Amino acid sequence: MSFDFDAFVAETKRWADDALAQRLPRDKADAVGAADPGRLIEAMGYAVLDGGKRMRPIVAAAACVAAGGEREAAAAGACAVELIHAYSLVHDDLPAMDDDAERRGKPTVHVAFGEANAILVGDALLTHAFAILAAETRLDPAARVASVAVLARHAGVHGMVGGQARDLALGQAIDRIELLEEVHAEKTGGLYAAAAALGAIAAGADEATVARLERWGLDFGIAFQHADDVLDDEQEPLREAAARRLAELEESCVATAESFGPERGGPLAAIARWVAARGRAVGG
Amino acid sequence: MSFDFDAFVAETKRWADDALAQRLPRDKADAVGAADPGRLIEAMGYAVLDGGKRMRPIVAAAACVAAGGEREAAAAGACAVELIHAYSLVHDDLPAMDDDAERRGKPTVHVAFGEANAILVGDALLTHAFAILAAETRLDPAARVASVAVLARHAGVHGMVGGQARDLALGQAIDRIELLEEVHAEKTGGLYAAAAALGAIAAGADEATVARLERWGLDFGIAFQHADDVLDDEQEPLREAAARRLAELEESCVATAESFGPERGGPLAAIARWVAARGRAVGG
Repeated sequence: MSFDFDAFVAETKRWADDALAQRLPRDKADAVGAADPGRLIEAMGYAVLDGGKRMRPIVAAAACVAAGGEREAAAAGACAVELIHAYSLVHDDLPAMDDDAERRGKPTVHVAFGEANAILVGDALLTHAFAILAAETRLDPAARVASVAVLARHAGVHGMVGGQARDLALGQAIDRIELLEEVHAEKTGGLYAAAAALGAIAAGADEATVARLERWGLDFGIAFQHADDVLDDEQEPLREAAARRLAELEESCVATAESFGPERGGPLAAIARWVAARGRAVGG
Repeated sequence: MSFDFDAFVAETKRWADDALAQRLPRDKADAVGAADPGRLIEAMGYAVLDGGKRMRPIVAAAACVAAGGEREAAAAGACAVELIHAYSLVHDDLPAMDDDAERRGKPTVHVAFGEANAILVGDALLTHAFAILAAETRLDPAARVASVAVLARHAGVHGMVGGQARDLALGQAIDRIELLEEVHAEKTGGLYAAAAALGAIAAGADEATVARLERWGLDFGIAFQHADDVLDDEQEPLREAAARRLAELEESCVATAESFGPERGGPLAAIARWVAARGRAVGG
């Protein structure tokens, strides 16, 4: 029986949506003033529970299974990395950044709740991601500390935020595949690397296995962006190099996934093939 | 020999400045592109190493000593809470928030580095605070997890960020001392509570002691704001109530500090008396 990729993605997305809904903050029962100051809690839900594709939670779950764990162990890591992704979209959409009024067919957070609140919503989601990791009593303290460390590293100045700053600073000056790939690695690869590492840590994997899956996530994230580059007219001069790198990264991601065996590694291998097929479909 | 408060504050501030300088991020040696994308690392230093009073690190150090620890054990917690404070100032100063062009006699981060970078600098500082806690190998994993949990709780939606949203939402409608005190507790008390708890955790204190010092920090933070209220013309209707609460909080903070004995509790007691004296000096 072959692996049903679409059913796996749909089912894992529902699992992630449930896990997120359980872990978002609730009103304080003892508040003297307004129960939801500035509708901050409402806006956090608006930003997160909005039908995102949940690709990062799906990667966390698949990496956990590859490393021999139960999916449920990866729930906190899956939610934490998704909150980081969600906050980055809220801040990216701000007038001073990309100035987007709509996302997934809805007004962006700053349009719906005001710009000051959108800044605070992003800050609250980012902070809450670490609260979720620290609160996951299913994992022992060493695994929780490792989770915080790996997420902070890939989300911060040497990861996602650094990649955003580099992208802003360089813009059209990204004229070499090496430079483009470095921005992809930081801006997109970082959170996928964190997602895969969080899944591996949750499975109780040894350091070498965590590192192997973290590398898988980084390569997957870069491949994901190259698939976009292949159809992006602005990247036309780099399109051929992007297609070549996409094929290389697909091969190494599938090989790493298959090294965990057909059953455990199946979901990860299918995810890698799906991204590459997406690039091929749009590219030609 | 009486406790020399000014010397203690000056010496502990130097210690905190050194600890911060050691823990701020550095350039990646292997960057393909610009070594400091968008001057993000430079801007993080600009925001943090700017002559702040370091009150939160001083509280973390004093709480650690009160709980029987060595000051150095509190260094990571002291830095983490100060980075949270620093990021909150960067975001507060943004045009969509308080729109401040100057802070401590220097252009604010968004004036000096641009608004998009200021948003990212805040995000990077917030993320880095948790990286610092996770990396503190001087503490065992359980203490590091407890540190992440307490900082995330007081910095997030039910702490500092929630207080900022409540303050924005309520503004002039804060017409009762109970409501004013709830905003103070979240917005200012939260980080002082985190600072004191981080110091206690670093000392290896038991849960009851951590809770007692966390409460000290919360009360101290509220007292700190009431001292401001006492001289704030806009708070004139609440000034008498604020002065009364300031005196009550001073008494309870000094009593808690003294319960740790004259030597260990001395710095905490002196800090509490200093805040109250500040309120009395301006108030009358």
